[in-house]
Amino acid sequence: MSFKWMKNVREVTPYVPGEQPQQGRVIKLNTNENPYPPAPEVARLAKEMDTDKYRLYPDPEVTELCDVLADYYEVKPENVFVGVGSDDVLAMSFLTFFNSEKPVLFPNITYSFYEVWADLFKIPYIMQALDTDFRIKTEDYQVPNGGIVIANPNAPTSIAMPLCEIEKIVSANEESVVIIDEAYIDFGGESALSLVNKYDNLLVVRTFSKSRSMAGMRIGFAIGNEELIKALNAVKGSYNSYTMNMPSIILGSESVKDDAYFKETIGKIVATRERTIAAMKKMGFSILESSTNFIFATHEAVPAKKIFDELRNQNIYVRYFNKPLIDNYLRISIGTDEEMAAFLEKLASILK
Amino acid sequence: MSFKWMKNVREVTPYVPGEQPQQGRVIKLNTNENPYPPAPEVARLAKEMDTDKYRLYPDPEVTELCDVLADYYEVKPENVFVGVGSDDVLAMSFLTFFNSEKPVLFPNITYSFYEVWADLFKIPYIMQALDTDFRIKTEDYQVPNGGIVIANPNAPTSIAMPLCEIEKIVSANEESVVIIDEAYIDFGGESALSLVNKYDNLLVVRTFSKSRSMAGMRIGFAIGNEELIKALNAVKGSYNSYTMNMPSIILGSESVKDDAYFKETIGKIVATRERTIAAMKKMGFSILESSTNFIFATHEAVPAKKIFDELRNQNIYVRYFNKPLIDNYLRISIGTDEEMAAFLEKLASILK
Repeated sequence: MSFKWMKNVREVTPYVPGEQPQQGRVIKLNTNENPYPPAPEVARLAKEMDTDKYRLYPDPEVTELCDVLADYYEVKPENVFVGVGSDDVLAMSFLTFFNSEKPVLFPNITYSFYEVWADLFKIPYIMQALDTDFRIKTEDYQVPNGGIVIANPNAPTSIAMPLCEIEKIVSANEESVVIIDEAYIDFGGESALSLVNKYDNLLVVRTFSKSRSMAGMRIGFAIGNEELIKALNAVKGSYNSYTMNMPSIILGSESVKDDAYFKETIGKIVATRERTIAAMKKMGFSILESSTNFIFATHEAVPAKKIFDELRNQNIYVRYFNKPLIDNYLRISIGTDEEMAAFLEKLASILK
Repeated sequence: MSFKWMKNVREVTPYVPGEQPQQGRVIKLNTNENPYPPAPEVARLAKEMDTDKYRLYPDPEVTELCDVLADYYEVKPENVFVGVGSDDVLAMSFLTFFNSEKPVLFPNITYSFYEVWADLFKIPYIMQALDTDFRIKTEDYQVPNGGIVIANPNAPTSIAMPLCEIEKIVSANEESVVIIDEAYIDFGGESALSLVNKYDNLLVVRTFSKSRSMAGMRIGFAIGNEELIKALNAVKGSYNSYTMNMPSIILGSESVKDDAYFKETIGKIVATRERTIAAMKKMGFSILESSTNFIFATHEAVPAKKIFDELRNQNIYVRYFNKPLIDNYLRISIGTDEEMAAFLEKLASILK
């Protein structure tokens, strides 16, 4: 064994996801999952599924799911692209659209996978600094570039950007594709979907992992001009003809149909979020204005890392980023009222 | 709308998969699916699955499935990588290992996705010509290269290469990763798995889509030296942390456990294959020696395209490749005995 092939291995620094403890009784507030199960019909349909047909390839066009999403978001099926979670959709978008020699632009504090994909595909990029209030500066995205990606609301800051600011960026960049990553938009903020018929360079990316309670199914999608979707499908077809498996197509499609349940769970999460924020403020936390299913908080006296460690010792998982500018903050996903009550109780005892 | 972003779109010529007619009564012998359903326990387990937990992210390490595969193939879990079908595993392998300036080598007649991935990732490549009997020439892969990928048995030729020839290629190329794509190996030929503990540059790729009757679930895997798997996981972790959804992990793992059913269905397919070959030879077909669940056939008098079209008109789908050297051949997947009887009957009437 000489391991001489190693010199041609692609060098990467992988994204580090939040811990996924696979067993034990933990309160898991670290990966922004939804505390409520998928729509009730999903469970019924899963039991009725004909597993004999799993022997066949799934529909490579994923027609059923694209049709359901097009119907729900009032666009044409030709405006919809689906993938294995929004990570797959975003990675494919980077590969498809970001081939300029000019740098791709995104904030210095945002979903850290953007930097990982740019490195993976050897795409030049510049990370534009947020302002001191952790807000995106619109003018930073009105300079020459090879593409733009903005999470709105942003993560882990939880802050939403007004739609008029997003539109300024999209309209100023007709030579670039502008990706708006709306993973959390169902919990607050204004969606850019209303602009996709106006701008051919705007791609809006969404996920089933947060508001739709289906992180375990791996479903994401993008909505944009038909030409953007065609380009994405061409590259996707050069990577893997069949990315979406049968259960994802069938159960994902079903889950979209129960809009009352969807809105009810979002309403509950938003209410729990506001109660949690109020309680934490009384404990001495400063909390950024959240439009998401998580909050980003810093304490006036106790270091974030200390709180993180002590919570973890008591089987409560939140997210801590050991990174400049945000290393005294905690990102806390919103769970059920019961989970947040337990969290607040432990938090109070840690701060005492 | 100016569509000015189009100049930076990655240019690709996508792979064209076999047709997937989504409705109607057809006999589908065009994408090498298994005519038998997944193992019976898969259906039972699917009905019992707790869909409430789909709200959570799946295990990013896919421990359960890697453990089951390691156990079955008598390797360590650290020797196993899993992905969304072997297409995902192969694409990720190209991206991870083929970063030399020297060309990657593969046959001129083989799985046509190899060329598509090389183009997608801008990897230089040379397609080595098969000999006039459609066999791979070992010496063609003992020249300087940046990587090698060989389907064994090869597709669409169905011909297996002796293991001693594979070993000559692996041992001659310690500076390159040699990928042996064994999508069809369960139907014939000698697996290179016996060599993975001997050569650190050998990666064996397999799929659940053919012999394991799970094309609809999208599961593929690779087995190789721990360092190869580590490199693959690093790149995979830079692309998408969670590629395998919960149903794939749970049902995929279960399906491997019923080895008696697995071997029984393979035995039936091989028997049906041999009967089909014998019947077609009597009709005037020449057929390459098949070690797969499909056959590659040419008729002494009637052009392949004509047979393909007439079968299709009668709702029997086989595969025709309009490509140099093989444009008078048909690739016919092996279905059930009933399907092949119907196919042979139509074939006889077409040839009359």
